[in-house]
Amino acid sequence: MITISCEFDGGNIEVKSCGEDGAARLAIRQDKDSEHFQWFYFRVTGGGGLPLSLAIENAGEASYPPGWEGYDVAYSYDRETWFRTETSFKDGVLTIEHQPEFDSVYYAYFAPYSMERHLDLVAACMTDPRVAYERLGSTVDGQDMDLLTIGTPGGDKLPCWIIARQHPGETMAEWLMEGLLERLLDPDDPVSRVLLERAVFYVVPNMNPDGSRRGHLRTTALGVNLNRVWHDPNMQTCPEVAVVRERMEDTNVAFFLDVHGDEALPYNFIAGPDGVEGLGDHVREDIEAYQAALVQASPDFQTEFGYPVPPMGEADMSMATNWVAKRFNAISMTLEQPFKDTKDSPSQLYGWSPARARHLGRANVEALHAVVGRLKVRS
Amino acid sequence: MITISCEFDGGNIEVKSCGEDGAARLAIRQDKDSEHFQWFYFRVTGGGGLPLSLAIENAGEASYPPGWEGYDVAYSYDRETWFRTETSFKDGVLTIEHQPEFDSVYYAYFAPYSMERHLDLVAACMTDPRVAYERLGSTVDGQDMDLLTIGTPGGDKLPCWIIARQHPGETMAEWLMEGLLERLLDPDDPVSRVLLERAVFYVVPNMNPDGSRRGHLRTTALGVNLNRVWHDPNMQTCPEVAVVRERMEDTNVAFFLDVHGDEALPYNFIAGPDGVEGLGDHVREDIEAYQAALVQASPDFQTEFGYPVPPMGEADMSMATNWVAKRFNAISMTLEQPFKDTKDSPSQLYGWSPARARHLGRANVEALHAVVGRLKVRS
Amino acid sequence: MITISCEFDGGNIEVKSCGEDGAARLAIRQDKDSEHFQWFYFRVTGGGGLPLSLAIENAGEASYPPGWEGYDVAYSYDRETWFRTETSFKDGVLTIEHQPEFDSVYYAYFAPYSMERHLDLVAACMTDPRVAYERLGSTVDGQDMDLLTIGTPGGDKLPCWIIARQHPGETMAEWLMEGLLERLLDPDDPVSRVLLERAVFYVVPNMNPDGSRRGHLRTTALGVNLNRVWHDPNMQTCPEVAVVRERMEDTNVAFFLDVHGDEALPYNFIAGPDGVEGLGDHVREDIEAYQAALVQASPDFQTEFGYPVPPMGEADMSMATNWVAKRFNAISMTLEQPFKDTKDSPSQLYGWSPARARHLGRANVEALHAVVGRLKVRS
Amino acid sequence: MITISCEFDGGNIEVKSCGEDGAARLAIRQDKDSEHFQWFYFRVTGGGGLPLSLAIENAGEASYPPGWEGYDVAYSYDRETWFRTETSFKDGVLTIEHQPEFDSVYYAYFAPYSMERHLDLVAACMTDPRVAYERLGSTVDGQDMDLLTIGTPGGDKLPCWIIARQHPGETMAEWLMEGLLERLLDPDDPVSRVLLERAVFYVVPNMNPDGSRRGHLRTTALGVNLNRVWHDPNMQTCPEVAVVRERMEDTNVAFFLDVHGDEALPYNFIAGPDGVEGLGDHVREDIEAYQAALVQASPDFQTEFGYPVPPMGEADMSMATNWVAKRFNAISMTLEQPFKDTKDSPSQLYGWSPARARHLGRANVEALHAVVGRLKVRS
Repeated sequence: MITISCEFDGGNIEVKSCGEDGAARLAIRQDKDSEHFQWFYFRVTGGGGLPLSLAIENAGEASYPPGWEGYDVAYSYDRETWFRTETSFKDGVLTIEHQPEFDSVYYAYFAPYSMERHLDLVAACMTDPRVAYERLGSTVDGQDMDLLTIGTPGGDKLPCWIIARQHPGETMAEWLMEGLLERLLDPDDPVSRVLLERAVFYVVPNMNPDGSRRGHLRTTALGVNLNRVWHDPNMQTCPEVAVVRERMEDTNVAFFLDVHGDEALPYNFIAGPDGVEGLGDHVREDIEAYQAALVQASPDFQTEFGYPVPPMGEADMSMATNWVAKRFNAISMTLEQPFKDTKDSPSQLYGWSPARARHLGRANVEALHAVVGRLKVRS
Repeated sequence: MITISCEFDGGNIEVKSCGEDGAARLAIRQDKDSEHFQWFYFRVTGGGGLPLSLAIENAGEASYPPGWEGYDVAYSYDRETWFRTETSFKDGVLTIEHQPEFDSVYYAYFAPYSMERHLDLVAACMTDPRVAYERLGSTVDGQDMDLLTIGTPGGDKLPCWIIARQHPGETMAEWLMEGLLERLLDPDDPVSRVLLERAVFYVVPNMNPDGSRRGHLRTTALGVNLNRVWHDPNMQTCPEVAVVRERMEDTNVAFFLDVHGDEALPYNFIAGPDGVEGLGDHVREDIEAYQAALVQASPDFQTEFGYPVPPMGEADMSMATNWVAKRFNAISMTLEQPFKDTKDSPSQLYGWSPARARHLGRANVEALHAVVGRLKVRS
Repeated sequence: MITISCEFDGGNIEVKSCGEDGAARLAIRQDKDSEHFQWFYFRVTGGGGLPLSLAIENAGEASYPPGWEGYDVAYSYDRETWFRTETSFKDGVLTIEHQPEFDSVYYAYFAPYSMERHLDLVAACMTDPRVAYERLGSTVDGQDMDLLTIGTPGGDKLPCWIIARQHPGETMAEWLMEGLLERLLDPDDPVSRVLLERAVFYVVPNMNPDGSRRGHLRTTALGVNLNRVWHDPNMQTCPEVAVVRERMEDTNVAFFLDVHGDEALPYNFIAGPDGVEGLGDHVREDIEAYQAALVQASPDFQTEFGYPVPPMGEADMSMATNWVAKRFNAISMTLEQPFKDTKDSPSQLYGWSPARARHLGRANVEALHAVVGRLKVRS
Repeated sequence: MITISCEFDGGNIEVKSCGEDGAARLAIRQDKDSEHFQWFYFRVTGGGGLPLSLAIENAGEASYPPGWEGYDVAYSYDRETWFRTETSFKDGVLTIEHQPEFDSVYYAYFAPYSMERHLDLVAACMTDPRVAYERLGSTVDGQDMDLLTIGTPGGDKLPCWIIARQHPGETMAEWLMEGLLERLLDPDDPVSRVLLERAVFYVVPNMNPDGSRRGHLRTTALGVNLNRVWHDPNMQTCPEVAVVRERMEDTNVAFFLDVHGDEALPYNFIAGPDGVEGLGDHVREDIEAYQAALVQASPDFQTEFGYPVPPMGEADMSMATNWVAKRFNAISMTLEQPFKDTKDSPSQLYGWSPARARHLGRANVEALHAVVGRLKVRS
């Protein structure tokens, strides 16, 4: 018997019907108290050797329908290696035609990153003598907001903030963080050694634990899109941002990176605080230097394609990158990774993947090293 | 600030108060719709270097208060190694006095075994060519009931069933299963090679996924103690047992092992279907042979201490071991491991532990090998 | 161009000719100053995808020609996994017909165990706090004779000696030792924990470093067969045995195991000090108990096939097993493993292999545990 | 009893005396048929807990006595982690005062890289589908000259040659190679992926197997310094260079890197073909670009300190870098690593180490990526 389930960490699917011929009618559940949806993650059992046809019927009404064009689903048998298989999008329906080799197979929008793995990552980093752990506060569901401080603050140490996964369905953001943290904590890596002499890192590997566990695309347990509340974060409705903003005020910010995933564009790219008024020229220059270094460190990154630039004064100040740039007059960037693949260096087997996201995380450590001499606390 | 949280897979605690001096008043939550409770698992943040005093005030009303006598709590920083530290039980209150080294530390009744790890275990075994995966049905919460079939049924192959964790708080049962499965699937192990020529194994590594995820001690999402419904499992109230029993009827049973943990006794021991009427002598003899082999294979196992034997005819037929013995006239055993430690070969640092439970799992493969020549399908 | 080389640790071959068609005429070199030869180990480069025909022309004059009957050569590309491929023996010539997949492939009589690996093994064990390292003396070539003492001598601790590889070409002896040491030092293994409370182990993982490095079958740098000098070991001609015997006199011996490989028999078996006069009955009884336990612990071991038993009084007292039994009136055994495979549980892909030898090493720890209560110092 | 031995792969020491008080008089053996010596590697047994005083009395006459100024010896217990301990050089004697923790400890000029590890490295790379193995010829001792070709030659693929360890005592050269190969073969590394689309790599991880195994500093089994014969390599006296040069003629060379270690300077640096007449400007420009990229990729590399530049026309054309630059009019460099440590980013515990050399190997892959667009076949 073919069955479809999603009752595990980050799971999301609704089964409307599932026939013995392997044809299933599915829908993605909306984020709680929100209209957003696009993240899915489910397990098919009993379909080994059968030609499955899994139709996600509400794909056309998802948050970013253009995300489905040219998209191939990720799947895994062993929950470690995530392959890609062709997916079609037609008349608003996303259809996975796939013949799995085993009687248990997982399909997901992107390789999942569970809360258990998150807690393991935090625990592994925390036991390094150069790292301090801090619980910033609680999510609405009662999960801890975990902050890792790498290096000892004080003296001329530059306070650099890196956060990821405001949008929980953008799991590649935490995969990237894993690579970045691994490299930063490699005691033999000369880049990291130099960097830790000059800067202290405040890292929030997961800004949205509740959305992560609930299998949301964009929002928290209250349906809040965290990247739209930075101008005025309320401790009741979005404690996740409130506690981070508060801690930033303590430490000051000389560098800010916010890691995301983009549904549509088949590229890694950076969006700066374009359209924010009153920033020093150094912000733009620092971002250009950072991008140039990242292009050099990783051919998976590029600067040709990205978001359109808003006119001066029309930046959305509720977004982390804009708000931080303005508040601290500092280099502040959103790093976007594809759900699909990179157009310039595609991988048919894996698409954009955890392994590649980790590499991009490592490359960001190099870009940081390239600009650290330019950084200053300016507020 | 010291904070205590449990919003993760298997977490369980209620915080009544938590002071900045490190003194906290806690309670264990009851299993949903049940009076059972004793499993706890929580994280303390912000207490690094401070002398914590964590008082579980309702310990005296837990399911098995004698379990607290001589018990030492398990704790971990990295979520991999679980140490023990002294715990006192007085006037119904269990108190953990401990000065953690880090600002994030986990305390648990026993080293937890998460559902994510369970799914990883199932996935790792399933991709072995000698293993077939089967979803037997759904739990009340919608989780899959996972069955692994090891070896190809048919011919004279003896159907051997091994299940674990009917009681979700007895996590050592699944740690044992991990060792047992690992050994059974080691292609170079001569014991396993011979065994798989003569028997086929039906393994349910986790009988109670809902209770596991919810942080229950003994029961399911509906408050059902699965080991009290085997005589008449209802598909609505305890599908977990209903689907396993049904599958047993298909395969027949020549051997049955049900893996548990015991709150009170500091020993590993086996309880057979004592008090069940009408069993062939071979059942008792097979069990004796199995125990003798297990004593030989593992000094952590013994036969001197165990449960009192009920008078003939007074066995509780709602328990798996008794029901299976009667139905299939087969060797049928409950294997109990300590929450505390083994009295004869204690480990001050770790107590009874995941590593030692895995070893006992491996030793069971040897005991099986010792008796396989005695086994028969008899129903 | 196809080329054959053997200038590496343990290498042995002589190339008489090697044609571009993949046909080569080879000979095994004799052990230095000895007529013994049978061990070979060489590398073929440039033969990827070609049908090689490698003829060892002096195979018929090797030490044990019956060893070639039913023998399949071991080969490896990555120097870790050693496969088997069919080999024919006809008219005194051993011919390997094989089409390697890569342009570098190694062929050997059995999976080699290099001196570098030996030194790594010693180093890994030695850093365990329960182990003491001792250099017993020097080989003729100037290599160290390494002794590992496991556990603290003194009190009632039983002195148990285990040695391996008197005959250097019997590399499976050191592979077995690796498994045995690994298990003995597993701090969570209950069998090893109990054993180390009652006994102290004196382990010589490699009795013949010079022969090992030189690619010998049976003898040392001086052409001495160490297992024929135990009655009167001379410090000049066979210091390897002299220093071990001397140390045994210090510690006394309650148990002795000497690990070997046998060219001809497709079985694992034990040879005791049969034919040695004046031993207590306990020696025979202990050996029977040990064998029974080993049969139980490993189906790869058996007692039906083995060496013929010499008449009473006709034992060769120059052999380690016989000399130790007589001198210490103790259980004393030669453990033989096949170069070929086990007849009862063959593995077409690997034959008898490092992984299986390691398993047999682990099983010996169990057999030791089974008899430790019977052991005594009796001299 | 304290004893000192060196009969293992790459070992080198002569013991003049060794007292029970831990004081030993030692000398380094000259390379065979050469006056060069400076590499040492030996094991001290029986000295655990004792204050050893090991005096290398001929240190003052070694090949580069300034190498001993500011030098700290490397030592290891487990043969994996190599620590440093203070060493003094006075009146021509190098003295190691050290109290080892264990009864077996190794001391070496730098962490050794054995021929067994070399063969393992070649085997591991070779089984990657993108790699071809080729035996270029034989050393004087009969060892294979191993070449790895990474990527498929043909089309516009740039032929890039990287060789290491012409001087066998400069083991850091092969440690660097390990990191470089590992990164080049990481299928998810975007830098390597792009690089392999544009170039094909010819890698000789060890140019001097005989000197490596014999424990030489600089020369081969015939006492030949390979880096002084490139202008006219004789197949009889230095086949190692002859076969490589011949193969270079086949493939052409667009890039050449020769990896070394330097006894004196506490820096990583590059020496180009300075003083070679008639090279295009691009050679100097390419080297400058490479160095700039390497500085960026690794703070362990610098360009301030290095060798003095010879006057134009006075380059030693017998050296690989000079000869290759001239012959192929290509970027050609000698990369030097310290035996001691880097002055700018020292590590008290490890000094310059295998782990750091591997990182520098990875950084070279990035520098290659930075210049690949500039490269051309020009001869």
